[in-house]
Amino acid sequence: MTKPMIQIALDQTSLAAAIEVANNVESYVDVIEVGTILAFAEGMTAVSTLRKNHPDHILVCDMKTTDGGAILARMAFEAGADWITVSAAAHIATINACKKVADEFNSEIQIEIYGNWTMEDAQAWVDLGITQAIYHRSRDAELAGVGWTDADLVKMRELSNLGIELSITGGIVPEDLHLFEGIKAKTFIAGRALAGDKGKETAEALKEQINRYWK
Amino acid sequence: MTKPMIQIALDQTSLAAAIEVANNVESYVDVIEVGTILAFAEGMTAVSTLRKNHPDHILVCDMKTTDGGAILARMAFEAGADWITVSAAAHIATINACKKVADEFNSEIQIEIYGNWTMEDAQAWVDLGITQAIYHRSRDAELAGVGWTDADLVKMRELSNLGIELSITGGIVPEDLHLFEGIKAKTFIAGRALAGDKGKETAEALKEQINRYWK
Repeated sequence: MTKPMIQIALDQTSLAAAIEVANNVESYVDVIEVGTILAFAEGMTAVSTLRKNHPDHILVCDMKTTDGGAILARMAFEAGADWITVSAAAHIATINACKKVADEFNSEIQIEIYGNWTMEDAQAWVDLGITQAIYHRSRDAELAGVGWTDADLVKMRELSNLGIELSITGGIVPEDLHLFEGIKAKTFIAGRALAGDKGKETAEALKEQINRYWK
Repeated sequence: MTKPMIQIALDQTSLAAAIEVANNVESYVDVIEVGTILAFAEGMTAVSTLRKNHPDHILVCDMKTTDGGAILARMAFEAGADWITVSAAAHIATINACKKVADEFNSEIQIEIYGNWTMEDAQAWVDLGITQAIYHRSRDAELAGVGWTDADLVKMRELSNLGIELSITGGIVPEDLHLFEGIKAKTFIAGRALAGDKGKETAEALKEQINRYWK
């Protein structure tokens, strides 16, 4: 199984702050994400600037695209994103529109799982040729104290069995990685945990767990 | 019943183009919307610029907020938005976080209905004190030829009966307005139909139908 990568989510409200964090963490992360907050704060300049600053990293734009798929996807890929996120709540026509633009750019879309989705929805994503999804506790759910539940883990395994690689996020800590053993994990995503003073240490601890559970 | 208002959705990919459209239409629209595309293209500068240019219009930022609710809401309200949109697929904790920030700014949130939502979800929104939602055919569904169905109209009436005012969008034309008679319609939203050469004419035709069906 491919080893999961480490992804930093940049959710600063100013590009200057995000640039600084990205420069600090680039040596120990594989994937740099322009978070929804940063993208709405600064627009596509955030994507093009980070693309220029980090030409060799995978760059994600977390748009949670819900409508107007083709235009949004094109905007982000033209600005230099390798992957964009598309909401699981989007109409299948929107998801399809994003996928087609991604194919044109040799890029990928990730279904961001929110709301009342079903495994039939997931099968429909796979049928469109989509290979990635993001699974998480929402930031607000996390703040409300909702943890990783058995129901989460069962759903993640089912998605993984459909062939979908998962990026996993929402209070990711090294001690939890064993929970996801056997799942096709594409990346583990963190923000503040990787950006702070102990960021490098956290990244190393994550890598140690990755090497332990994904051979 | 309050008369529905007319809302222009600005979905240009550049602020300069959006400014021009807003200037052209301001005399015959009540509500100006910074569409998701424009907000992602240019960031919150789009909101603050349109706020400055149109101090007396209601200004909406269509963020389709799905996570990180408090930060996104604060960003948009600080930039001058009166209303923001929040995805129906967001965790109820996210919706609640947005509502609390909106209250602080004496502003409102609108639930943007996408995905597999239920009437129980809608009741939960009402229980939080939310009074607005957006109901539409997705742009992509519309392109795929999916029209206003009886199922749509039944759901809209149910939402209206819960006390939710609906902004209605997705290929809105004057000839269709009679379909929505009796529904608490907050606004009818259009983009190109209001922005083009015949925009003023379309707005007048919409207002004629509004006066006919909402007394």
